[in-house]
Amino acid sequence: LPRIDVSLCVILDGDVEATLPLEAFTREVIRGGATCLQVRAKHATARNALDLARRVLAVAIPLGVPVIVNDRLDLALASGAAGVHLGEEDLPVSEARRLAGPGLVIGASATTLDAARRAAEEGADYLGVGPVFATPTKPEAAPIARGVLEAISREISLPIVAIGGINESNLAIPIREGADGIAVISALRQCPSPGEVAARLKTAIAKAKKG
Amino acid sequence: LPRIDVSLCVILDGDVEATLPLEAFTREVIRGGATCLQVRAKHATARNALDLARRVLAVAIPLGVPVIVNDRLDLALASGAAGVHLGEEDLPVSEARRLAGPGLVIGASATTLDAARRAAEEGADYLGVGPVFATPTKPEAAPIARGVLEAISREISLPIVAIGGINESNLAIPIREGADGIAVISALRQCPSPGEVAARLKTAIAKAKKG
Repeated sequence: LPRIDVSLCVILDGDVEATLPLEAFTREVIRGGATCLQVRAKHATARNALDLARRVLAVAIPLGVPVIVNDRLDLALASGAAGVHLGEEDLPVSEARRLAGPGLVIGASATTLDAARRAAEEGADYLGVGPVFATPTKPEAAPIARGVLEAISREISLPIVAIGGINESNLAIPIREGADGIAVISALRQCPSPGEVAARLKTAIAKAKKG
Repeated sequence: LPRIDVSLCVILDGDVEATLPLEAFTREVIRGGATCLQVRAKHATARNALDLARRVLAVAIPLGVPVIVNDRLDLALASGAAGVHLGEEDLPVSEARRLAGPGLVIGASATTLDAARRAAEEGADYLGVGPVFATPTKPEAAPIARGVLEAISREISLPIVAIGGINESNLAIPIREGADGIAVISALRQCPSPGEVAARLKTAIAKAKKG
């Protein structure tokens, strides 16, 4: 059984506060149907990133939605988050598993089938595959090659969350290619009612999975 | 009893390789008398920083010199380093101690007496105090106020390593103000024989402590 429902993974960074207070944003997207949250604070100090994670956790834990901290295993452990998400340049999954033990959810980014295989072998609980499309959040990252998502979803039994430039109009593509869910950041940013957008995404994901 | 000898703490980053291979540099400064090493890789990916730490550890462990990893508790634990050094914007000392247990050496930066008190209360094993002088390594950081180092060394019983713009010509100042040792990075960088410089620093430190 998968340890985490990656159907709709909402990525939060300090920038959401340009629109709504972090706590309100978190509550909204959970009401809208987010199944997991990822806290990403690449340009923050460790102390500010820890604070961000704790503020999100204070809202998400009572509502039963798992929070994953991006990149930093130490901050994931210190904050009491459900898991950590590791990029291909981050701490190797095997090291994170060794340090954190079996209790922590570990997600791993994979841009190729080889990387996906390695992450699965090393003990990842889910895979983040992308960028599926070009994304303003990571303008330097080229989308993954055609066929990679299908190949990974065919071979690897872990839950797969597609990421990168995904919105309501294009989410059916990665879902039909085998993704179990999508991760969004830009689609909800600078959006006055992120809960409504999350709910629409959730409906569209369910529809894409059926058809 | 102090857990670490901070008399001469040499900070290593990827830039030392401009002069010597990392392993040779590490061996040289240990021969010259470095009593601890700190691995700092602020601009590296986590994976490269981990690799850097492991390469230094492979040389330093057989020679009995402790290696401290800067900033990242997860990388300190994953690499098997003796300790972690935490800045005022990094993971709080109390969190690091809770996660790492009593076995890990935890160093903490302090720019004020209040920060030094807090770090000591939270379980730090040594304090890094500075910048004592202006330093090209952190041009944005203003030197600490006059009297701070003396005040900290008078009140706090932990080993104190002075840092920031310290070289052979000025190291007697922080030592006389109560520092137990000095940390150097610029003083050894782009230096063809870092071992000789380390040895001269070591002699000068001993002399400053006596007089």
